[in-house]
Amino acid sequence: MTAPNRATLWGRTLVDELAEGGLEAVCLAPGSRSTPLTVAFAEHPAVRIFSHLDERSAAFFALGRARRTGEPTALVCTSGTAAANFHPAVMEADRARIPLLVLTADRPHELRDSGANQTADQVKLYGDAVRWYAELPDPEADERKVRSLRTTAARALAETTGIEPGPVHLNCPFRKPLEPTETPGAVPESFGETLAGRGRDGPFVEIESGATVPRDEQLEGLLQGLESGDRPLIVAGPADPAQLQALEPADVLTVADHVGAPVFADPLSGLRFGPHIEGSGGSLVCGGYDGYVDAIPDPDVVLRFGASPTSKPLRHALRDADAHQFLIDRAGTWREATFTATDLLAAAPGPTFAALADRLDSQPSATEDGRSNDWLAAVDRAERTHWSIRDRACEASALADQPFEGAIVATALESAPDPATVFVSNSMPIRDADRFGAPRVADLTVLANRGVSGIDGITSTALGAGSAADDSVVLVTGDLAFYHDSNGLLAIDRCDVDATIVLLDNDGGGIFHRLPIESFDPPFTEQFKTPHGLEFEALADCYGLAFESVAPEDFESAYERSLERPGTEILRVAFDSEPSHRRREALAERVYGTLEDDGV
Amino acid sequence: MTAPNRATLWGRTLVDELAEGGLEAVCLAPGSRSTPLTVAFAEHPAVRIFSHLDERSAAFFALGRARRTGEPTALVCTSGTAAANFHPAVMEADRARIPLLVLTADRPHELRDSGANQTADQVKLYGDAVRWYAELPDPEADERKVRSLRTTAARALAETTGIEPGPVHLNCPFRKPLEPTETPGAVPESFGETLAGRGRDGPFVEIESGATVPRDEQLEGLLQGLESGDRPLIVAGPADPAQLQALEPADVLTVADHVGAPVFADPLSGLRFGPHIEGSGGSLVCGGYDGYVDAIPDPDVVLRFGASPTSKPLRHALRDADAHQFLIDRAGTWREATFTATDLLAAAPGPTFAALADRLDSQPSATEDGRSNDWLAAVDRAERTHWSIRDRACEASALADQPFEGAIVATALESAPDPATVFVSNSMPIRDADRFGAPRVADLTVLANRGVSGIDGITSTALGAGSAADDSVVLVTGDLAFYHDSNGLLAIDRCDVDATIVLLDNDGGGIFHRLPIESFDPPFTEQFKTPHGLEFEALADCYGLAFESVAPEDFESAYERSLERPGTEILRVAFDSEPSHRRREALAERVYGTLEDDGV
Repeated sequence: MTAPNRATLWGRTLVDELAEGGLEAVCLAPGSRSTPLTVAFAEHPAVRIFSHLDERSAAFFALGRARRTGEPTALVCTSGTAAANFHPAVMEADRARIPLLVLTADRPHELRDSGANQTADQVKLYGDAVRWYAELPDPEADERKVRSLRTTAARALAETTGIEPGPVHLNCPFRKPLEPTETPGAVPESFGETLAGRGRDGPFVEIESGATVPRDEQLEGLLQGLESGDRPLIVAGPADPAQLQALEPADVLTVADHVGAPVFADPLSGLRFGPHIEGSGGSLVCGGYDGYVDAIPDPDVVLRFGASPTSKPLRHALRDADAHQFLIDRAGTWREATFTATDLLAAAPGPTFAALADRLDSQPSATEDGRSNDWLAAVDRAERTHWSIRDRACEASALADQPFEGAIVATALESAPDPATVFVSNSMPIRDADRFGAPRVADLTVLANRGVSGIDGITSTALGAGSAADDSVVLVTGDLAFYHDSNGLLAIDRCDVDATIVLLDNDGGGIFHRLPIESFDPPFTEQFKTPHGLEFEALADCYGLAFESVAPEDFESAYERSLERPGTEILRVAFDSEPSHRRREALAERVYGTLEDDGV
Repeated sequence: MTAPNRATLWGRTLVDELAEGGLEAVCLAPGSRSTPLTVAFAEHPAVRIFSHLDERSAAFFALGRARRTGEPTALVCTSGTAAANFHPAVMEADRARIPLLVLTADRPHELRDSGANQTADQVKLYGDAVRWYAELPDPEADERKVRSLRTTAARALAETTGIEPGPVHLNCPFRKPLEPTETPGAVPESFGETLAGRGRDGPFVEIESGATVPRDEQLEGLLQGLESGDRPLIVAGPADPAQLQALEPADVLTVADHVGAPVFADPLSGLRFGPHIEGSGGSLVCGGYDGYVDAIPDPDVVLRFGASPTSKPLRHALRDADAHQFLIDRAGTWREATFTATDLLAAAPGPTFAALADRLDSQPSATEDGRSNDWLAAVDRAERTHWSIRDRACEASALADQPFEGAIVATALESAPDPATVFVSNSMPIRDADRFGAPRVADLTVLANRGVSGIDGITSTALGAGSAADDSVVLVTGDLAFYHDSNGLLAIDRCDVDATIVLLDNDGGGIFHRLPIESFDPPFTEQFKTPHGLEFEALADCYGLAFESVAPEDFESAYERSLERPGTEILRVAFDSEPSHRRREALAERVYGTLEDDGV
């Protein structure tokens, strides 16, 4: 590794090791102190660069890309507040287990806490939200330091995809010159040349990680537990990228089929949509439970994996059921906030279900021996009732009369191309996707920022995911989230990503109609609902984006047209949130009423 | 204090104590977990509420207000990433010593690290960037707990304006019900009624803070030091609000006059603009040094106060001068990153200069006894040369021929109404204000985010300052900063603030032309200059704001017209950053050339 000066040596060595270790993409925000990193990334042929002007949006874009690929994505910024702008995305990456490698440039050690310009305390800036924090040593052409640098780079990259994937923070001090300016004597010629790969192809340090798998007796205990119930249930919560990649839906279906358990598949679980739905027959994979869970019998044994389900009715039903609840988590983390689960198994769901399916292959299934037919039939009837009521409510004629936002979210999923990546905003869209997004035999990658469930960075996360997707990209978002990350729209042009953006515009925080605060006005309207009257068409003009306002009943055709066209379009569908919310409630009541009449 | 439930009791008690302690304003972002705080603030008659939809902009708005008033301003957000969005402004408040009281709602303790929705680790979220962190206890109608709550509120508020003012973080866990819903038995009637003020008007706890003042012998030492030099210099760096309020410019002038020291007044020092300029005669208060400091003799004794000066040429000149350098800082913090200062006095500049002036009142001045005439004359000549060259370059005819951004910044300051609040963005605008903003006999409050010097949150900080100002409000910003905080524009309507926004649009990061990276392209254009082509007129439309594009030579008249009109207007002046930068350099060369010819 040759370099004209120490800072350049540091930048090039770090980037070289990361690239050799498999890093494929980086989001860069412009700045001076980060010049050695930016220059090194820009000149490296193996790393794709995405340039952003707002660090907050940059971080969410990187998060989205890492969420879609499961591969570590790097982030670079200059010193000071720029680094603090990464914090929201780092927090989300922590809870959602997204491999994010954060590289913050910093002043050299002697300038800290000295009043030097653009200098803040960046040490452990993200607290415990990162899997690992390290401070790079001051650049110097010293063999051991460079070995340490390469080892640190390899370790940092590996930590992002370790047992519990997540963000890692390297704070990188640099001293001037920051540019690749020739500084005679700073770096001996061909210094450290032998360090790259040490004669082999690849990184200086290879770090690999095994999977946590259950022991035989643990698998046996789990099976016995499931088989001991009359009404077993499998609950698949939101999946992190590592789980999405490692879990075979067929294995889950094998287990479900054998023990006679329906699978309540969160829209973010990777199980609600996909080719496996076809083979699941008789609604073994359910998606409508958010709308009927209190109308079916309580399960008596539950196997849960993934994060806590999006559906609050489901979470409460699990809390209130007198059931034996098993949790499986790859990192052994407790992710069940009602504290009614009984058994936690620290193991990766993918290998665990594979091993369970393997054991069961030779045994007769519960559905075959008729053990749980009543239970499965009850769930099946509820599921069919829910979707049939939804289907009627989503017809154009019904929508013209009684528009509701959930219909748009349902259609966005139902009519999305196969394959497609659909990113769904927090607040109401993900709840509507949960309740109204029916299981579908299509290769849909449905994603959301469900780690901390913020409404920040939504557009950027979607576009970041889109930057890594070969399929069509759809974003379903609300007006507050769209406003919050309006800066993220710049990536459409700068980072060459196309998306169909479905904007549910109810002029404020419609979700607050769901909460008791609705009946306290003031302050409800001014401090909670917060109508803003923003002209989103003008915002689209600012970024040179196509924009169309459509009525709810015309959405489906406009959506299909938009998906066929290349380029990004914003499809705005306006709603009055209060009646939309009432309609949503009325539909749930109708499902419950129907199931009650049917005597479920 | 009565309340329908515990959360409401907690919110009301906290807000009551803060209001009794003098809190006048709060910025709220909508959210559910923060409902008890939002409701309590909304119903309190003494606290003004500013509602924001983007927490990052909210925090900078609060920062701006606190910067303008010197009074603590509170911030409220819900749990999760919302709190992380406050981080950039908290970082700036730390370094710039701005009294910011951050109230983050949180889940109750038992839900943390349990996979509960929207739950992240908020404990010490801002690390060491806050003066104090405290976690409120879970709400309960217990007398000692409520006394603790009131005491904590009073302490938190007081800490924001302590010896070293700055941000304070209270993390506030709440359990449902969060709304003021009647919960029988939760709070005994009239619980804690006697706690408010304990029978007196005012807060439960009164906390006051003295000032750090020098002892007599320390004052004597300082004076002897200043008087021992042949070329004494006083350097006033950027002031924090507490210093701005406590320092009498007349006292500084008295000291300067007596020892024969020119005052190099940073545009953010509170000394470059004001009625005192009239009495300073013979350029005792200088503002042009950034353009000539290397052409005058080195000072041999320097008294510095405030933060590190904006001017890099000045900082380097002070580093290279073989001078005895005294620092005065109210918190005894070292804010001099070249480490050439020799004496640090932990004392508040206001009382220190008052005491020095008091001692000197009876003594003859240096200018009278002729001691330093050569030195003062040299500085005076340089100052006059600098302004005369600037004046010619800023004439409309010159600008039409050779436009440069500094002329717009100069005019924005020169033609600002008296009084006015002028907020200047980081990156080039503050550097241009430093070099081209001439001392003026006008009550200008010139502010910038110079704590960490980020380009984030600029618009919001300006509008927050404007929300507290009775005078005209001007923001001078660049296109990247304007884009970065585009969300901040929403406050113009929502928070009822008017401003004249001068937008210097050079389509990217013009400042990078100043750096050596300019000669490495790629990656210069794509990764550093980053042209974006944003249509800011459409952005103005999105927010319903008036917008006008003007040529540099027409700026002055458009600016004056705009200032006379009510309401907000964006005046965009487009530049090609490269020739603008060359012109800036050429003017500096002309000043140096003229001074050299004059034999200074």
